[in-house]
Amino acid sequence: MEFKGYVYSLARKRRSIRKYRSDPIDLGDVLYAISTAIQAPSGANRQPWRFILVDDPDLKRRIRRTCEIGEEKFYKSNNVPEWFRKWASERGISLDKPFLTDAPYLIIVLSNKKAPYSKESTWLAIGYLLLALEEKGLSSLTYTPSEPKEVLRILGVPDDYKLEVIIPVGKPAEEKVKEKRLLLKDVVFLNRWNNPINIP
Amino acid sequence: MEFKGYVYSLARKRRSIRKYRSDPIDLGDVLYAISTAIQAPSGANRQPWRFILVDDPDLKRRIRRTCEIGEEKFYKSNNVPEWFRKWASERGISLDKPFLTDAPYLIIVLSNKKAPYSKESTWLAIGYLLLALEEKGLSSLTYTPSEPKEVLRILGVPDDYKLEVIIPVGKPAEEKVKEKRLLLKDVVFLNRWNNPINIP
Repeated sequence: MEFKGYVYSLARKRRSIRKYRSDPIDLGDVLYAISTAIQAPSGANRQPWRFILVDDPDLKRRIRRTCEIGEEKFYKSNNVPEWFRKWASERGISLDKPFLTDAPYLIIVLSNKKAPYSKESTWLAIGYLLLALEEKGLSSLTYTPSEPKEVLRILGVPDDYKLEVIIPVGKPAEEKVKEKRLLLKDVVFLNRWNNPINIP
Repeated sequence: MEFKGYVYSLARKRRSIRKYRSDPIDLGDVLYAISTAIQAPSGANRQPWRFILVDDPDLKRRIRRTCEIGEEKFYKSNNVPEWFRKWASERGISLDKPFLTDAPYLIIVLSNKKAPYSKESTWLAIGYLLLALEEKGLSSLTYTPSEPKEVLRILGVPDDYKLEVIIPVGKPAEEKVKEKRLLLKDVVFLNRWNNPINIP
């Protein structure tokens, strides 16, 4: 079965980009994507999400520094499974996080801990956000720092809010092949676990 | 600022629908939306999501029954804040979950508990899924049952998987005004919490 549709084509096209050009991008495009995200449904429509756009070079440096320190602690700990180390190293993913200073904007996505289904709602909205960025020709990455507390402090975020993800946004400075996906038949079942579905 | 773009227009248009016509819908459209969802990024590309499509009337009845029993326990407990009871009752949301039997398909979304960022990745993919359903003119709801264990048992799901959400899919049997959203300026800040951004 061949699928045709615009949303599918955006989803297929999008890759997680770790290297960015520092060229400025249109703030309007970033705000377009956030406007799209905030149309998402949320638990009891509490709209638990908040976004801090970071474009200040000094702030980006401080965020990068604290994230890299957190990564170093994480990698030195025993919490990192061997398969993950292998996966990361095969992709050149290291403790260095240059995208945190190179990308023209970082979107810091926060969620209100007191809202119902706060994490679920916020990540659903992040799905909307990524597709809308892709529509505007902007690359992105969902980067979850190991130790987000210091980032929250740097940005003056109140205690009720949790850092869900940092999304660098900009034009890509690398070419990337999309990571392989499982086939539809491997992830969709009919009426019962493992019961195959006839895919037309 | 007025935003123009297809993804935004889909996000604006989508409403959470609780009343469905039982008319059959095209299985291809549902699979299109799942194909879109599985293009989403995930922690270490582990693709923790699985989907069970339920169209069997007897299974839908059993799922509805167990969900309604769970809701009754939940509503009778002391875990439900007053503001939530009020919010739900103003919208006619009750213990009855007719959408679980009326919608032609239920998409049961599962996540592999052992994958990294399993919940985050799966909800991001649910964002993709809802937009792709909307693109095909299909309504949806993200329904999170209070007691998912029995649903998992009915469907024979192994212990490694968690139920994230049940999404009824079909044609709407109600007209709905979209719930109000906060304004962009209320949820986006520049470089620091509460620092307003100049929206062009």
